[in-house]
Amino acid sequence: MSPEPDVFAALADPTRRLILTRLAEGEATVNELAEPFPVSLPAISRHLKVLERAGLIVRSQEAQWRPSRLQAEPLDEAVAWMQSRKRTWDARMDRLEAHLRPKGDRHE
Amino acid sequence: MSPEPDVFAALADPTRRLILTRLAEGEATVNELAEPFPVSLPAISRHLKVLERAGLIVRSQEAQWRPSRLQAEPLDEAVAWMQSRKRTWDARMDRLEAHLRPKGDRHE
Repeated sequence: MSPEPDVFAALADPTRRLILTRLAEGEATVNELAEPFPVSLPAISRHLKVLERAGLIVRSQEAQWRPSRLQAEPLDEAVAWMQSRKRTWDARMDRLEAHLRPKGDRHE
Repeated sequence: MSPEPDVFAALADPTRRLILTRLAEGEATVNELAEPFPVSLPAISRHLKVLERAGLIVRSQEAQWRPSRLQAEPLDEAVAWMQSRKRTWDARMDRLEAHLRPKGDRHE
């Protein structure tokens, strides 16, 4: 399983990571999301567009203020991708360690 | 715990993700890493620099061909960051679901 490339790019920005942290606690409007940041509303809107393209949030079409909501699936895929590499690496390290470990009853 | 911002930026490129996938199976030289890709050695070297800056690989200083090796810790931190958001979100969804679930013995 390969995650959407856009997911990691979206997570590469600290403001976008903070927006996701906020949205993990519940949906929020652009104004609410912009509140803690010393950046303009259009800048926050641009960040939301990046998160939306990456599938990490959805924005309601209904209300004029279009609240944003987290979508957890892309995070799951990205985590699965990283954990799979990690497992391959750990398995390799275990084999290497077993190979290097001195053993009285083992000569190769 | 907050992961290095550079980790997600490093993971945002598909060639760099394939390089990491290869390195999870064992260390490799620039030439070995470049082999499956239709890109130049300097391009691969630039990708390795990005991965190195993000702490995702270390390159040996000893040999002339400087083999690259995966470093798993930044992956762990990035996974922890994403899982923490996911847990907050899941907990919120559970509360919402509990709240919306019709209950004969419950009126709010």
